[in-house]
Amino acid sequence: MTVSGNASKVKVAIVGSTGYGGVELIRFLLGHPLAEITSVISASSAGVPITDGFPHLSEILVQDLDGVDPEEMAKKADIVFTATPSGVSSKLVPQLLEAGLKVIDLSGDFRIKDGSLYEAWYKHDAPDASVLEQAVYGLSEINGDNVVGSGFISNPGCYPTATLLGLIPALSAGWIDPATIIIDAKSGVSGAGRGTSLMTHYAEINENFKAYKVNKHQHIPEIEQSLSQIAGEQVTVTFTTQLVPMTRGIMCTMYAQLKGAYTDEDLTELYRQYYEGRPFVRIREAGKWPATKEVFGSNYCDIGFAADPRTGRLTIISVIDNVVKGAAGQAIQNMNLMMGWDETTGLKLSPVYP
Amino acid sequence: MTVSGNASKVKVAIVGSTGYGGVELIRFLLGHPLAEITSVISASSAGVPITDGFPHLSEILVQDLDGVDPEEMAKKADIVFTATPSGVSSKLVPQLLEAGLKVIDLSGDFRIKDGSLYEAWYKHDAPDASVLEQAVYGLSEINGDNVVGSGFISNPGCYPTATLLGLIPALSAGWIDPATIIIDAKSGVSGAGRGTSLMTHYAEINENFKAYKVNKHQHIPEIEQSLSQIAGEQVTVTFTTQLVPMTRGIMCTMYAQLKGAYTDEDLTELYRQYYEGRPFVRIREAGKWPATKEVFGSNYCDIGFAADPRTGRLTIISVIDNVVKGAAGQAIQNMNLMMGWDETTGLKLSPVYP
Amino acid sequence: MTVSGNASKVKVAIVGSTGYGGVELIRFLLGHPLAEITSVISASSAGVPITDGFPHLSEILVQDLDGVDPEEMAKKADIVFTATPSGVSSKLVPQLLEAGLKVIDLSGDFRIKDGSLYEAWYKHDAPDASVLEQAVYGLSEINGDNVVGSGFISNPGCYPTATLLGLIPALSAGWIDPATIIIDAKSGVSGAGRGTSLMTHYAEINENFKAYKVNKHQHIPEIEQSLSQIAGEQVTVTFTTQLVPMTRGIMCTMYAQLKGAYTDEDLTELYRQYYEGRPFVRIREAGKWPATKEVFGSNYCDIGFAADPRTGRLTIISVIDNVVKGAAGQAIQNMNLMMGWDETTGLKLSPVYP
Amino acid sequence: MTVSGNASKVKVAIVGSTGYGGVELIRFLLGHPLAEITSVISASSAGVPITDGFPHLSEILVQDLDGVDPEEMAKKADIVFTATPSGVSSKLVPQLLEAGLKVIDLSGDFRIKDGSLYEAWYKHDAPDASVLEQAVYGLSEINGDNVVGSGFISNPGCYPTATLLGLIPALSAGWIDPATIIIDAKSGVSGAGRGTSLMTHYAEINENFKAYKVNKHQHIPEIEQSLSQIAGEQVTVTFTTQLVPMTRGIMCTMYAQLKGAYTDEDLTELYRQYYEGRPFVRIREAGKWPATKEVFGSNYCDIGFAADPRTGRLTIISVIDNVVKGAAGQAIQNMNLMMGWDETTGLKLSPVYP
Repeated sequence: MTVSGNASKVKVAIVGSTGYGGVELIRFLLGHPLAEITSVISASSAGVPITDGFPHLSEILVQDLDGVDPEEMAKKADIVFTATPSGVSSKLVPQLLEAGLKVIDLSGDFRIKDGSLYEAWYKHDAPDASVLEQAVYGLSEINGDNVVGSGFISNPGCYPTATLLGLIPALSAGWIDPATIIIDAKSGVSGAGRGTSLMTHYAEINENFKAYKVNKHQHIPEIEQSLSQIAGEQVTVTFTTQLVPMTRGIMCTMYAQLKGAYTDEDLTELYRQYYEGRPFVRIREAGKWPATKEVFGSNYCDIGFAADPRTGRLTIISVIDNVVKGAAGQAIQNMNLMMGWDETTGLKLSPVYP
Repeated sequence: MTVSGNASKVKVAIVGSTGYGGVELIRFLLGHPLAEITSVISASSAGVPITDGFPHLSEILVQDLDGVDPEEMAKKADIVFTATPSGVSSKLVPQLLEAGLKVIDLSGDFRIKDGSLYEAWYKHDAPDASVLEQAVYGLSEINGDNVVGSGFISNPGCYPTATLLGLIPALSAGWIDPATIIIDAKSGVSGAGRGTSLMTHYAEINENFKAYKVNKHQHIPEIEQSLSQIAGEQVTVTFTTQLVPMTRGIMCTMYAQLKGAYTDEDLTELYRQYYEGRPFVRIREAGKWPATKEVFGSNYCDIGFAADPRTGRLTIISVIDNVVKGAAGQAIQNMNLMMGWDETTGLKLSPVYP
Repeated sequence: MTVSGNASKVKVAIVGSTGYGGVELIRFLLGHPLAEITSVISASSAGVPITDGFPHLSEILVQDLDGVDPEEMAKKADIVFTATPSGVSSKLVPQLLEAGLKVIDLSGDFRIKDGSLYEAWYKHDAPDASVLEQAVYGLSEINGDNVVGSGFISNPGCYPTATLLGLIPALSAGWIDPATIIIDAKSGVSGAGRGTSLMTHYAEINENFKAYKVNKHQHIPEIEQSLSQIAGEQVTVTFTTQLVPMTRGIMCTMYAQLKGAYTDEDLTELYRQYYEGRPFVRIREAGKWPATKEVFGSNYCDIGFAADPRTGRLTIISVIDNVVKGAAGQAIQNMNLMMGWDETTGLKLSPVYP
Repeated sequence: MTVSGNASKVKVAIVGSTGYGGVELIRFLLGHPLAEITSVISASSAGVPITDGFPHLSEILVQDLDGVDPEEMAKKADIVFTATPSGVSSKLVPQLLEAGLKVIDLSGDFRIKDGSLYEAWYKHDAPDASVLEQAVYGLSEINGDNVVGSGFISNPGCYPTATLLGLIPALSAGWIDPATIIIDAKSGVSGAGRGTSLMTHYAEINENFKAYKVNKHQHIPEIEQSLSQIAGEQVTVTFTTQLVPMTRGIMCTMYAQLKGAYTDEDLTELYRQYYEGRPFVRIREAGKWPATKEVFGSNYCDIGFAADPRTGRLTIISVIDNVVKGAAGQAIQNMNLMMGWDETTGLKLSPVYP
């Protein structure tokens, strides 16, 4: 693809630009050589400069927020990222598709193929089945082939991304017993969004570690859907979600019974082969485990192992930045795949350390 | 017991007064009505005022640090708390016992009854077997009867305290399968002590969540020793230790297969009965889980449950303040039991919130 | 005073028990030997157990929240702490006084003696002048003599407490030029209360340091009122308020031109004499400065100095825990003074460190 | 300038690659289109992969650390960044210049033109005067013209950068009285480097705010040297340094007496004109102040004002990321200027928010 000036760049609009997912899309898209932001959209703040709520963008992104108007969007943009809440996307996205836009949706509305399952966990009406079946689940490293050329991507959840990238190679190889999977997940607070509640109040979170929605998180059916496909049988998991007093980062510590006497070295080898050619997954050498700060601000997912001969059990540790690989970064990775570009385009930023 | 003035108070010395365990012993002992601090001791800082290193004690504890001298201690004190590192206590404590002192040891040196097991995990020489067998393991709520009247207590580790208080009632009742126990443990940084290393450097810990010593932590044999006693069979656990960017607090999230269709309500009832009359263990009502901040600065251990009918698995969540119930607070609780006092004496402080 | 059982304890009610000031009053009052909590009151949550919002009080304070009813309060209590917002206290307190209750008000409503000045800074109607003049300003160490025997205390603000305790001795001695006072104040986030807003959202505060209300904070007239009384002339200050990513603690760094060649030692001596017999103010030795953590959870105000011969300027650093000496702790200190008790009663807790 | 492949890129070496300044140089240089890293150097860790200490660079920078050898450096590189401690640079840099390398030094060794003043504040021997006089002080926005074409840059300190960018326009315009300048500075902990000490221990910093080196920080002579040049008279400042419980970020809150009735709007206008064409300084609109998070991870310096008619005093608030504009970012900006490139080359990253 030849690129000569903005004229040839793909035009991108972002709905939900005043949330953390939206503003992180902006950070990466500003540095993307093949895309340009033509409209930042907010249902609640239309008409005001985006820098009113986000002064860190001063003199970087000088745009007023647009309202939500699918026809206007279709004039301004080729691709729309919908960083909108569950229950909103299900209504908005069909209109955008109708208007001829390509859509990458960051909500949970189009991830669960079984509408009744969606409704049981999300407590919203499921989207129309005909739209639902068009949505390609954009777990880039696993399902990237289907993303290529698609016009409608359902971007995975943050917990599912870390969980599935960590579990799939071992499950796929038949090395672990699918009936024994336990996921102990921890997330920074940005995962709860920019809305205010006691749950995100600084004084309640700082110097605190707390569990929430134990076995009840809406990401559970999304995880089980993918694991079941891989395993070829219904997989049911134990899933604990916990809040860490930090802003960004997810660690999933996962447990499963090994089906053979595999060592850390075996696992390292298996995973490196599985993810060969996929630059955003990095496998730690045997005996080392990743920390969330080692992926902070970047699109990496880092994975380490501890196979324990005493118990025959495997511990897998995966980390991502929930706002990047768990949301905006993977969304852009999907845009790259969709458009036939190198999947790392605009995403080659190192983690910020310390 | 009649108490009239300092004359009748029990005299207490603290070895390791410049560590976090030592200084927390001071905080509680200053408010203890039946004990008084007669000597604060430090191998490294003898001769300087304790407030040089801990200005928060200004005008509260006006004492110079003493050196480590068992004979001097025997003159000044009735009871000694040894908040000394592993490998130091094993040599010092026999001398203190010899000198006629009662000892409450906060190191790991006297917790593992099998000397060779100790040496395998701690990489130090085990203490003399004759001394080892005198040590009473001071998990107050479980083993308190043996503490009463004893002269030598080995105070439990922080992770084992949270783990064992969380697991023992269900294990003891035969409700969970001992072969399936997984412990996902998280700790604040004060657990690593006041020594300086990259592991405790602010810029490395802040906005970071990391695992360490996965399946290799020296608290594993301590946990397995107690669980095996309760279960009447050898119990081997999977044990993950992780650092949370906070100063105080431990949460242990524990998983095990249920042996029956027990509900959260059943578990709440079982645990409330088990801990009846033990004021420092609080059981959350069904459907609620404790957070570390809810025990911050206090001697409480709070416990909650999620029994999952989908998987037949039980999740137990227990929290403590690692410096209090996981160290200094439980040590004083053991002193109270040892002396025949109410176990809450001097320990009735509410958690500090927020 | 002879105390024999609860029968003789003073009965205390707390309005605003679901805020941080209210819950901290509870922490200290639970350990107060001469007072007992007979009613915890909340306008918004009447009828529910206080532990619903504050599980850290489980099994410690088993009470349902009462509604706001002055007549009921008068039946249940002798003293009422009103930890209510500005604009609410001004209406409620007169009713409580009318009902014969002693009142210690933690809002800003009765601190400014000039009603029009209050209205200019607080944007609420000033309380009735006749009630306003009854209020004794409870800066315990400075104005304690007037608190003794009073029935209505206006408890100082958090910033004014740290500022005034730090400035008054030097100003009173005529050592600093009142026209040159600059106060650079920093506070933890609990000072903003438990209400939710973007201002207290974890992800906005963590890893951030920000200024707000520069020269516009409503504590300015309170500070100037007291400084002007001491100086005997109108004092106008520069006052910067800044949010620190921590929960508790205020540091005020204060600057003024020295009127003579005073040294750090001179200042230490001056301040120690000034605060002699007042145990909650601690003066650091020359060349050392206090940190907020050194007073965490306690009622202390710690002060240090740097007199700079290069510029002839004095830097004064004072720290308090904003929730304790800046609110609940000083309120109880005022209750103690009011009742003729030792001012440290129930307040002798050491700072929690680390 | 035409760039076609690595062949034409400028070769860069980094001494001190295992410190925070060094690793941040790496982050930005990896994305720099006109420079490439040919050697990462560490006196203490030569021979080991850089990813041993910094796993976040896994698969991003695959290089072993080189030892410190000026002749080898001259073979491998055109430009050397010396992110070495004070006292080390003074000895190393002359050798590098001798070997024909261009040098950008991040230590304090070449900032103070008066050797005896350097020795008084730094407690090291001053560098040789002949080398000292070659060093160009690289405060890019102020002294950039002298940087262009130079071969030896002394990169400014973090506090001086924030202070000088905040003060110089008003001082230069004669709007403030140079005799009245007070700087209340706050820094995140990364400013103390990666070395371990109680000063950087997580448990001592978290939930704490502390002052250190009040009026004694070695950055004072650097600030006074520049201010005196601008003012045309000797300027002496009051300077307080304080540690904030965060990793990155500096805020300098600065006070000075105004020489006229200037308003916030006047100041905004003055500063915007002064920094016109300098994209890394952003002036907030009147009545708004910047926060450190708004520049996190970026090379911006954001500035706001509060001119107070009540006191005739001006408050200036400037923020930077101490590791970027206060160290590595400005060093690269200087390299860009030195080489005649656009000063933003490789530095156009948005702040990371939240």
